[in-house]
Amino acid sequence: MNGAQALIRTLVGAGVDVCFANPGTSEMHFVAALDDVPEMRGVLTLFEGVATGAADGYARMAGRPAATLLHLGPGLGNGLANLHNARRGRTALVNVVGDHARSHKRLDAPLESDIDAIAGTVSGWVRRSLSPADVAADAADAVAAAASAPGRIATLVLPADVSWEDGAAVADPVPVRPASRVAPSVIRDVATVLSSGQPTVLFLGGDTVTAAGLLAAGQLAAGTGARLMTETFPARAVRGAGLPEVTRLPYPPEMAIAALEGTAHLVLVGATSPVHFFAYPGMPGHPVPKDCTVHVLAEPGEDGVAALLALAEIAAPDAEPEVLEASRPELPVGELTPRAMAAVIGALLPENAIVVDEALTSGVGLTELTSGAPRHDWLSLTGGAIGDGLPMALGAAVACPDRPVIGIQADGSAMYTISALWTYAREQLDITTIICDNGSYAILEHELSRVGARGDGDRAAKLLTLGGPGLDFVALATGMGVPATRARTAEELADQLRQALAEPGPHLIDAVLPGR
Amino acid sequence: MNGAQALIRTLVGAGVDVCFANPGTSEMHFVAALDDVPEMRGVLTLFEGVATGAADGYARMAGRPAATLLHLGPGLGNGLANLHNARRGRTALVNVVGDHARSHKRLDAPLESDIDAIAGTVSGWVRRSLSPADVAADAADAVAAAASAPGRIATLVLPADVSWEDGAAVADPVPVRPASRVAPSVIRDVATVLSSGQPTVLFLGGDTVTAAGLLAAGQLAAGTGARLMTETFPARAVRGAGLPEVTRLPYPPEMAIAALEGTAHLVLVGATSPVHFFAYPGMPGHPVPKDCTVHVLAEPGEDGVAALLALAEIAAPDAEPEVLEASRPELPVGELTPRAMAAVIGALLPENAIVVDEALTSGVGLTELTSGAPRHDWLSLTGGAIGDGLPMALGAAVACPDRPVIGIQADGSAMYTISALWTYAREQLDITTIICDNGSYAILEHELSRVGARGDGDRAAKLLTLGGPGLDFVALATGMGVPATRARTAEELADQLRQALAEPGPHLIDAVLPGR
Repeated sequence: MNGAQALIRTLVGAGVDVCFANPGTSEMHFVAALDDVPEMRGVLTLFEGVATGAADGYARMAGRPAATLLHLGPGLGNGLANLHNARRGRTALVNVVGDHARSHKRLDAPLESDIDAIAGTVSGWVRRSLSPADVAADAADAVAAAASAPGRIATLVLPADVSWEDGAAVADPVPVRPASRVAPSVIRDVATVLSSGQPTVLFLGGDTVTAAGLLAAGQLAAGTGARLMTETFPARAVRGAGLPEVTRLPYPPEMAIAALEGTAHLVLVGATSPVHFFAYPGMPGHPVPKDCTVHVLAEPGEDGVAALLALAEIAAPDAEPEVLEASRPELPVGELTPRAMAAVIGALLPENAIVVDEALTSGVGLTELTSGAPRHDWLSLTGGAIGDGLPMALGAAVACPDRPVIGIQADGSAMYTISALWTYAREQLDITTIICDNGSYAILEHELSRVGARGDGDRAAKLLTLGGPGLDFVALATGMGVPATRARTAEELADQLRQALAEPGPHLIDAVLPGR
Repeated sequence: MNGAQALIRTLVGAGVDVCFANPGTSEMHFVAALDDVPEMRGVLTLFEGVATGAADGYARMAGRPAATLLHLGPGLGNGLANLHNARRGRTALVNVVGDHARSHKRLDAPLESDIDAIAGTVSGWVRRSLSPADVAADAADAVAAAASAPGRIATLVLPADVSWEDGAAVADPVPVRPASRVAPSVIRDVATVLSSGQPTVLFLGGDTVTAAGLLAAGQLAAGTGARLMTETFPARAVRGAGLPEVTRLPYPPEMAIAALEGTAHLVLVGATSPVHFFAYPGMPGHPVPKDCTVHVLAEPGEDGVAALLALAEIAAPDAEPEVLEASRPELPVGELTPRAMAAVIGALLPENAIVVDEALTSGVGLTELTSGAPRHDWLSLTGGAIGDGLPMALGAAVACPDRPVIGIQADGSAMYTISALWTYAREQLDITTIICDNGSYAILEHELSRVGARGDGDRAAKLLTLGGPGLDFVALATGMGVPATRARTAEELADQLRQALAEPGPHLIDAVLPGR
């Protein structure tokens, strides 16, 4: 058995049976070994950022890591932005990065680069496999490192000859370390805070935004008067009718500050203390009020849901959570504004959908108008590196083939990883992509004024618009095998979305918004 | 004057007046400052790999660096693969990477990452600007570092508040260190080698593949019997009628070994000693014969052309170089094979063209059939990280607006940076892109067998083909504003190429090759 075969069999044995791949010469034995191990599903992407973003979306939905297969340092580099997002979301993910054969390293061949250094910038675990005898154990360690709480990126560098040489054997899985329990004293301390009657916010993030977590938090809200809030961009949030209403901390700093104003106690549950995405001149770096005390109920890596349940038993034993009733907005008519788009989505969101939200500025009203929709999952851009939406939807659809995936995708951001559409078509994934086509990097137009830069001239403006020529997303999608339509009114969007949801396979709707 | 204004004025004063940009919030003051400094041309790209590849192509043709503007670690990550190519080609290039404001760094905001570590993997010079008072001097140092022989990547990390705070002033340019002269004793030693009568190859690379360098090398060949060869993928090679014929060292290892067989002396001129791109089981890592002695006439960073001229005066003072006569292949008819494509290009290549070659396996016959064409420049993929072709053509066209640019582009490779086409259209660049559309990663199909991997099953094969669905490059190009046509025969390609070359602005031709 060669190294590649042992590696793949070990991955499969450890529960990693999907590999999002963009291979090169040094990975050819890995590719060949896919024929020997049919349990491993190889999914080809045309760009590494699609592979890494897909692995991120996959793990968020499957609850276990996927592998990526990347070609040397440049391939890892192409995957880096979405690995950044995965790192920020504490996603479990196993990168396999091919490298030159050991004998070739000292020759400084054209593709030589410092893979280990690049990997180190995003990984919580990096190892270079040094022999076929080691590679399977290395792979087992990689999976355990990735999947142990709170989840991290594990990168295994795989020299070509370690792949191709014989003498390897499959390794047993290494136990995955589950989330640790929060100490009872911490829970009692937070219970005391909640009983103070002072304005308190339970701030949920990480892996606590689940049905169980939300219902426990809702019980606490009902029993103690605490408000519920989540991170601005939780990796995965369960939402919809039957669950308590939870505010998302707004992205714009002035709105985030307003949302937390008057809070005396901020209790972190699986989340870190909120900070603004960016610094702005003359503004504090975070929205937490000066006299607010921050408490940590559960750190990332601790079992935040168990902590919430235990806390609810102490602090609000008899309370019942208030939950949202089923409700949908009416289907709007006329102009297709971002809010109308949100209403169409809220009106038609199918049961058990997975929403991948990279709408950015076009997402106005989206969470509000979908809050009473049937139960669904919502995946957000955890690390702020745009271009994760299309790939995440790909990964989510591979993880959950029986659930409809809806990607709500800003136009500028879509272009970073647009080739994801081709893999949607090849794998015939049930993904409906709605492009928020406003013809600009609208978020940067907002940010330009927010940071106090003038930028009122033509030359600056030209770097913020996507016009001259406009992007034709219908042509781009059909060019990659995804059926596509264009919606210019709310009615057209509703018709097209209904039809796309009714048919299996991928669809793209170019929603033409004001500005375009 | 704020830091951004001083930075841009300093760059312009140092001769850097083009910036390929994909900005984000932390770069908004840089963007706004473009309105204040009209001498700096900002060129928007939709993906950072396009920006970095364009800066690579620009510098190869302009002979001076362009700047890039990238957004934090993820933006730099997206640009990393083409920075790898630029590094391998010793391209002078100045990255400006925006970062969080200094006050924001310790907050570990979602976009926080180790920019310096990422930058270090590709840069020969990295600095973080620590105050508005320093930023201009930092920029001047960056340009000098980038442009000093032999050329390198200089990365300046620019915190947002260093951009936006006042108190900055323009800095004078820092002298660029020119290539050093080779010691006379080295030239005399190589002259002795050449006079030995033993089989000798002059191996040219780096910045020596110019008209002056080739003519001096040709004189040496005529006078001493030495053979002339270049690196497999020189950054920029001048070619065509009136210049000596020079063999390119072939890419396939067995052909490279054959090309150097029997060589007793290999004389490096601006190149490093050749190695195979990859290791292959049971094959040596490089093509240099065992009993061949390697001599260094000029290292990268030394003036190799001056060394060739001095050597020619000593070793072949009276010889006249043999040069290629003007010749073109006949226009082929019928099936559109790679060789027919090469013949069409050779027959129609305009005077003074810039060819950007990322044809990979479809490039069979390309150099042969263009060798007698009118004088032209040829840019190659220096670092082996595919996806550099479309961006390099963009940069070359910005550098040389009066010269036609022809990109010969493999289909799989095109998809990494396909959004470059949009910038072609926006900037109305005179670029004709020929897609070598064989519907597969053909190079990997070759490599799979070359490394001795079986890979004869469906599951491996699926990772090497681009079918199911096929990519429609005509739709992709028109979707980004580039007029496009499809050629299925040699005659169609000739007609379409002639027409594309006759019209200004960008055009794309999808050349449908066997396999598709």
